Amino acid sequence: MDIDAQRFCFNGDGRISLDRLPTEVDPVYRSKQDYRDILDRHVARLSERQQVLFASNSHAVLLIFQAMDAAGKDGAIRHVMSGVNPQGCQVHSYQHPAPVELRHDFLWRTTLDLPERGRIGIFNRSYYEEVLIARVHPEILRSEGVPGPADDAAVWRERYRSIRNLERHLCANGTRIIKIFLHISRDEQRKRLLKRIDDPRKNWKFSLADVQERAFWDDYMRAYEECIKRTSTPAAPWYVVPADDKKNARLIVSRIVLDTLCALKLRYPRADARQREALRAIRERLLE
Amino acid sequence: MDIDAQRFCFNGDGRISLDRLPTEVDPVYRSKQDYRDILDRHVARLSERQQVLFASNSHAVLLIFQAMDAAGKDGAIRHVMSGVNPQGCQVHSYQHPAPVELRHDFLWRTTLDLPERGRIGIFNRSYYEEVLIARVHPEILRSEGVPGPADDAAVWRERYRSIRNLERHLCANGTRIIKIFLHISRDEQRKRLLKRIDDPRKNWKFSLADVQERAFWDDYMRAYEECIKRTSTPAAPWYVVPADDKKNARLIVSRIVLDTLCALKLRYPRADARQREALRAIRERLLE
Repeated sequence: MDIDAQRFCFNGDGRISLDRLPTEVDPVYRSKQDYRDILDRHVARLSERQQVLFASNSHAVLLIFQAMDAAGKDGAIRHVMSGVNPQGCQVHSYQHPAPVELRHDFLWRTTLDLPERGRIGIFNRSYYEEVLIARVHPEILRSEGVPGPADDAAVWRERYRSIRNLERHLCANGTRIIKIFLHISRDEQRKRLLKRIDDPRKNWKFSLADVQERAFWDDYMRAYEECIKRTSTPAAPWYVVPADDKKNARLIVSRIVLDTLCALKLRYPRADARQREALRAIRERLLE
Repeated sequence: MDIDAQRFCFNGDGRISLDRLPTEVDPVYRSKQDYRDILDRHVARLSERQQVLFASNSHAVLLIFQAMDAAGKDGAIRHVMSGVNPQGCQVHSYQHPAPVELRHDFLWRTTLDLPERGRIGIFNRSYYEEVLIARVHPEILRSEGVPGPADDAAVWRERYRSIRNLERHLCANGTRIIKIFLHISRDEQRKRLLKRIDDPRKNWKFSLADVQERAFWDDYMRAYEECIKRTSTPAAPWYVVPADDKKNARLIVSRIVLDTLCALKLRYPRADARQREALRAIRERLLE
């Protein structure tokens, strides 16, 4: 069965309403074994495509994960990207910004970590937090000490524009951007947080802050919806991936990444006639 | 005598033709002593304004210098900024990009060096080289390995747009940008290069490459003109400063920087009633 990942894609056309988008769909796998087989196939092809990306050294891929707590970002990154050569793959996670980062514009700290040509860069959370958590908790915006319009709505508009412009610039310079929102239901989050308390091996993942943020669920959904609406472009689409079923979400994510890499139509660089001639001469010398 | 620096300013309105803009104007100083007096006054006020910028911690200033070789960039930075506290002032010079920089988009390397809030950042050359030397020598563009439109004109248009968008973003987030083009005549450059050969103390500044680039003078002027035309905005204006007279150029530059800092209308942050009350209480305890 082939997975149609593109039906979860938003590129700026059409409307989007998060509460009408499913957090659960018919699974694309038939059994646990089938899930493993599909994932293995995806990862093997991903690894091969990533090698070609590295060799052709013309494009980079930036994969951004955003979601509510416990939606499965870490797991998706681990399961989908673990088969890929880490030399060509860099993961960056973003927590509360450091003082030096707060003294710069809100796009600065992630810019340092943008993937070089030939690499896949993964952002576990990203500059999008600056229009998500900062929007749900406007006191964060205040504490950033940024001058600017007194009108908050104008701040968000300007930030969406900054993000769109940055992503357009990156795209024009060879970076293919994919943004993934793992969409879970509030009830599924509750179950997962409970599991983090009940399962001793998961205790380390539990954070009181996650429970506190649950109280702002509807605000977050509004912030995500507005954000996805304003920053979905053909150059940098958002994918809203149903994530109540972790396995299914991972298969969709791996399919999305694979589709993106394949769409670049990259090949190993080939030597031209002159280079082949030079290689032949070197070969002779090595054989002497 | 007050200096009207704004007449050298381009903010996107009106036409610009570099060969009609003067490389020499009536000097704003009457004697060497008068030059020193004016510069000292400017530097003293600059230093005071920079202290307020640092204390108020809301804005940054980015000062970009671009010019042909020997136009006086280094001298202008040295003479204008030497009186300013280096803790609040960072100078970055850009030569040929390093491999890691070439593996990123063309705005990446300078982004790392953007000034924090409260500081003055100075770029001695900048990302503008990517639409100047790279435009005069298209083989540089080729060597960057960037995918993109086969049509060079489209590459430059997209780069101007990237720059405008970046500067708009920085401005919206508190960075005031000033861009200075030190405008010298071809003959004045010849004299200065000769001096670098004839004066042993200046030999270290001489580079054969500077002489070679002279051959492309007209191409450079066209690239500068187009660049200034496409990237002058109210948020980030260009100043075309007549620079055949170094002293005069420095006085104009110091005036521009001073005008910019003054226009921010910054003050030392003042304690409000509650903070004053808290300070009073601490004062009592310190006195006990």
